[in-house]
Amino acid sequence: MLSHEKNAILTQSGPGQPMGRFMRSFWIPAMTAREVPAPDEAPVRLQLLNENLVVFRDSAGQVGVLEEHCPHRGASLFFGRNEEGGLRCVYHGWKFDVEGGCMEMPTEPSTSRMRHNIKAKAYPARIAGGLLWVYLGEARPVPVLPAFGFLGLPPEQVYASRWHQECNYAQAMEGELDSAHVGFLHRMVSQVDTDHQALTGKYFQEDTAPAWKILPGEAGFMACNGRRVDGDKRYWRLNQFLLPFYTMIPPRPGDAQLVRMWVPMTDERCWVICVTWRPEAPLGAQELAAWRNGENSHRKVIPGTTTPVEHKDNDYLIDRQLQKTVSFTGIHGIRAQDAMVTESAGPIADRTREHLGSSDLAVVAMRRTLVEAATKCAESGAAPAAVAKPWLYTVYATQAVLPQGMEPDAADEIIQAARARAPQAAANRQEIA
Amino acid sequence: MLSHEKNAILTQSGPGQPMGRFMRSFWIPAMTAREVPAPDEAPVRLQLLNENLVVFRDSAGQVGVLEEHCPHRGASLFFGRNEEGGLRCVYHGWKFDVEGGCMEMPTEPSTSRMRHNIKAKAYPARIAGGLLWVYLGEARPVPVLPAFGFLGLPPEQVYASRWHQECNYAQAMEGELDSAHVGFLHRMVSQVDTDHQALTGKYFQEDTAPAWKILPGEAGFMACNGRRVDGDKRYWRLNQFLLPFYTMIPPRPGDAQLVRMWVPMTDERCWVICVTWRPEAPLGAQELAAWRNGENSHRKVIPGTTTPVEHKDNDYLIDRQLQKTVSFTGIHGIRAQDAMVTESAGPIADRTREHLGSSDLAVVAMRRTLVEAATKCAESGAAPAAVAKPWLYTVYATQAVLPQGMEPDAADEIIQAARARAPQAAANRQEIA
Amino acid sequence: MLSHEKNAILTQSGPGQPMGRFMRSFWIPAMTAREVPAPDEAPVRLQLLNENLVVFRDSAGQVGVLEEHCPHRGASLFFGRNEEGGLRCVYHGWKFDVEGGCMEMPTEPSTSRMRHNIKAKAYPARIAGGLLWVYLGEARPVPVLPAFGFLGLPPEQVYASRWHQECNYAQAMEGELDSAHVGFLHRMVSQVDTDHQALTGKYFQEDTAPAWKILPGEAGFMACNGRRVDGDKRYWRLNQFLLPFYTMIPPRPGDAQLVRMWVPMTDERCWVICVTWRPEAPLGAQELAAWRNGENSHRKVIPGTTTPVEHKDNDYLIDRQLQKTVSFTGIHGIRAQDAMVTESAGPIADRTREHLGSSDLAVVAMRRTLVEAATKCAESGAAPAAVAKPWLYTVYATQAVLPQGMEPDAADEIIQAARARAPQAAANRQEIA
Repeated sequence: MLSHEKNAILTQSGPGQPMGRFMRSFWIPAMTAREVPAPDEAPVRLQLLNENLVVFRDSAGQVGVLEEHCPHRGASLFFGRNEEGGLRCVYHGWKFDVEGGCMEMPTEPSTSRMRHNIKAKAYPARIAGGLLWVYLGEARPVPVLPAFGFLGLPPEQVYASRWHQECNYAQAMEGELDSAHVGFLHRMVSQVDTDHQALTGKYFQEDTAPAWKILPGEAGFMACNGRRVDGDKRYWRLNQFLLPFYTMIPPRPGDAQLVRMWVPMTDERCWVICVTWRPEAPLGAQELAAWRNGENSHRKVIPGTTTPVEHKDNDYLIDRQLQKTVSFTGIHGIRAQDAMVTESAGPIADRTREHLGSSDLAVVAMRRTLVEAATKCAESGAAPAAVAKPWLYTVYATQAVLPQGMEPDAADEIIQAARARAPQAAANRQEIA
Repeated sequence: MLSHEKNAILTQSGPGQPMGRFMRSFWIPAMTAREVPAPDEAPVRLQLLNENLVVFRDSAGQVGVLEEHCPHRGASLFFGRNEEGGLRCVYHGWKFDVEGGCMEMPTEPSTSRMRHNIKAKAYPARIAGGLLWVYLGEARPVPVLPAFGFLGLPPEQVYASRWHQECNYAQAMEGELDSAHVGFLHRMVSQVDTDHQALTGKYFQEDTAPAWKILPGEAGFMACNGRRVDGDKRYWRLNQFLLPFYTMIPPRPGDAQLVRMWVPMTDERCWVICVTWRPEAPLGAQELAAWRNGENSHRKVIPGTTTPVEHKDNDYLIDRQLQKTVSFTGIHGIRAQDAMVTESAGPIADRTREHLGSSDLAVVAMRRTLVEAATKCAESGAAPAAVAKPWLYTVYATQAVLPQGMEPDAADEIIQAARARAPQAAANRQEIA
Repeated sequence: MLSHEKNAILTQSGPGQPMGRFMRSFWIPAMTAREVPAPDEAPVRLQLLNENLVVFRDSAGQVGVLEEHCPHRGASLFFGRNEEGGLRCVYHGWKFDVEGGCMEMPTEPSTSRMRHNIKAKAYPARIAGGLLWVYLGEARPVPVLPAFGFLGLPPEQVYASRWHQECNYAQAMEGELDSAHVGFLHRMVSQVDTDHQALTGKYFQEDTAPAWKILPGEAGFMACNGRRVDGDKRYWRLNQFLLPFYTMIPPRPGDAQLVRMWVPMTDERCWVICVTWRPEAPLGAQELAAWRNGENSHRKVIPGTTTPVEHKDNDYLIDRQLQKTVSFTGIHGIRAQDAMVTESAGPIADRTREHLGSSDLAVVAMRRTLVEAATKCAESGAAPAAVAKPWLYTVYATQAVLPQGMEPDAADEIIQAARARAPQAAANRQEIA
């Protein structure tokens, strides 16, 4: 349960809101690099933290992220003409560079100095790790990028995709922090998967009430959840929550690493950006093909949109017969199942009416962490510490089966795997700088 | 004319509103019995009096009506899995019985007592007379059902259907209480129907300004409207208005009885549920076929929806040529014609701008009865008397041609026909209990 | 830049708003004459200045413009039956003449006098110059029509069309007053048109920063914009702005005259009515064919609607490849290009965030003229002087190339061309009376 006030703080990301200011301290992942137009190509629209923006790349390859509306009389720069070093508003030909500087103002007399006093609102942008990052904050110099494990890797080791969800970022993200749901939402009815410790695997069904252990860190926390399995052992999963909206869940053995990013578009809609990568080797052709087809960690979208095929307005193409006989939901795809439960709570979940149990501990920890950090940021005006410590993001989600009584934080090996920050941070230093 | 304040009282049925509290004293008809899922089938959605609900039937055949959102974290139970005695939220597997009791909470440790403290909001429900009835009030024991003439009859003597209208329930209902419109809205241009005292018949055109006589009763009133016909006779129709939203109009001689129910979904939308029945014999194959096809008393809906084929967004498929030459409206179907005039006044009619005449007496009586009853209920907190007197609903709409000067309340025979309550109430006692 | 307060005055045209009251002093052009139903044909809907109306023509050919909702109980008169001298509401058969008088009230007793006390809200209407004009004000006698040059001409000399835009009338109109944009928005990339002083012609590209000279008049102003061309000459265009929402731009040599009318539907939508005419001769078959096809001055709409083919929701069918290589916008049609820039500033442009330059002088003059006039009208209650001087509207937009240093107001010939009012006003006296 959350009070109306705290729910508002958690969910509102506009420029004037505490969470909006807090998030603006961080670099914001905005789209995949392949969605960014090529040099001199037409601009694309982008909604981010309740702001309307356009993204383009100038002739030199620099990315510009500008407020959508021209500072002159408000025409949309989405219809602008991207030409020789800048984006030109087609209404009167005012032309802006990637920093918002007005390069030309042909409707003013040649003697006019007016163009020097006009700036389009522009945000620093950077392409790294297969993503476009935008910094909507005011600090200069801008911070360095968070040193995720996939930064600095060759392209063949990384795959990223983006779609959107019809609800607030926080409740979408809760669906991933919340390990307890895996034993139900994603369960197969017709068979128990005994081959590996899979999402749909037997461990999730052997014990549906995981115990939680939250290990706080400077950039978020590790949310460890443990299930009693194989007699008296514990199956521990060490999930990661990283400020302000990143989650990692442990891959199945042999699978690629992954991080998911839950980025506010508006308060009632969010981007989901998913990056999968292999730190040491190229991604396999088969897993790549599956991801491109929207399977496993990724989602299939309607071509030309960021709307998943299975979405709210078509009831996620639920098949009630399948729900009786094969899968628990009758809905195709783990991600669509997640979207269904989180979106169906409404555009912004009314958290005053909840009843939380012991399984919701990670969700509670996330809310508390974010609300406290946003409130503190609003009061002090200071950026959170994690912004200046990119290496805190070189972490992993991992899993292990431990003997009874052994806690994950006492198990050196898995904690090392989860916290193995330093080497990677060094490796990708050049891409994050 | 109605003041803004009284119009608000009349039209708002949310839980906190006077009319909302008043209506919650009564059983609310919600859908036809054949729309209720079979045991263990998938749940369906239901909007009622501004509340979002789901309806399912458990393995034992008991009907459950639950608030749509799971009390845990708000996921929609519409996507739930209906299995062995309860509806399971697919998010975390919490499982609820038809009374909202939490049967299982598998994400809590086996020692937890939490499930005993959690209830999904559940409303008593009953299937009777071919309909699903829901009680959204707080009185326990719950009242008995209103003893409509069709309760307790064998299924072959009753037919029910449901559709929705895009306006407030009150103005939809006004279109039926209002007998005066029949002589125009439903008139045929090309011919005068002289065969019988039909809806489209000659009596309605012989005198288009009926006189009204309102005979109040404990559960509403009889709205008698009389037309000068055949020289100096009077054609009297005795319509029924029953609290809180029932209307009956007299069938043509030989036709089945009927009641229509004008049930708020939201303040800007309502259900129309129509029940037609024969007290003594099975319905005829021909009339049944016509009703199933959406003719006469019923409407044809777009398959898989409750939206009538002729509806607001397609201008009711009006045919202007037909309007010139055949029917007064150019719109197919008596019910679609009614919907057109009532919906076209807007989602909630602005009754401050009306100009009522002597033909509107029954409409005025209905508004006054409802607003006064709701206000009284809000002040006293007491349920209206009619709730405890189900036999008041065993009434009929009827008609007769009386000699000049004879009022309907002095005509024993027709008043008896209209008020014949007791025997029927006894007959269907077992279904209403 | 405009304050929030002044922006509200400029943009809000409801009955209670200053601009709404001001505009209601004038005749309002509402649709083309060919869109007005024939006698006894079905009525059509019309939104005007935030009011919902229906338009019909009675048996005698008189045009009626009534409030959409029947004064009885609010049913829409759009579904009414137009018969023998009046529009009959199909709900109860109340019948209204073109002045709103209630001709029949058949649901009242024959002795009732009620119909004499009921009036449907009706507005004076007139067909002239190929348009329907409606007067929504209260002055009686009503003013005469503005004596536009096309009034009184034979039909073969006039062509009118209508479509709508998805934004406030003021910002749509700004796109036409604003001559400076022509050199960009409508520019061809692939070629420079040197044949004539065309919209797409070389003069607009020779000097993209026109100088402005505003010549105020009693009914608005002439907005003269001059470009340095052909060495040291000046290409002057004399545009007209006429209260409350008329604009004229000079036709290319040999082309027809034109006026555009920017009429509020609601505050977030407007009609655009365009009239093209030849004062001395019939229109050419070729230009007529082009206009009917939505080219040049007019737009092509989706059949059965007033929605242009290229519109906001389809991004004006922008072709980015074309934008690179042929036209500046990649959007087909001068008018669609205008709509794109004005609509893309939002339903009501936020003028507090603008940055105006010297090229925006005519836009500033229009805003100031309108806001001052509306404020004055609200304070004094008096109609603006122009309402009583119809001859002020017999003006033209014209153009000329003048020697260096010669201002347009010193060039007798072109000023005479632009102000040639008297003869035309006499010629069309009979149509405007």
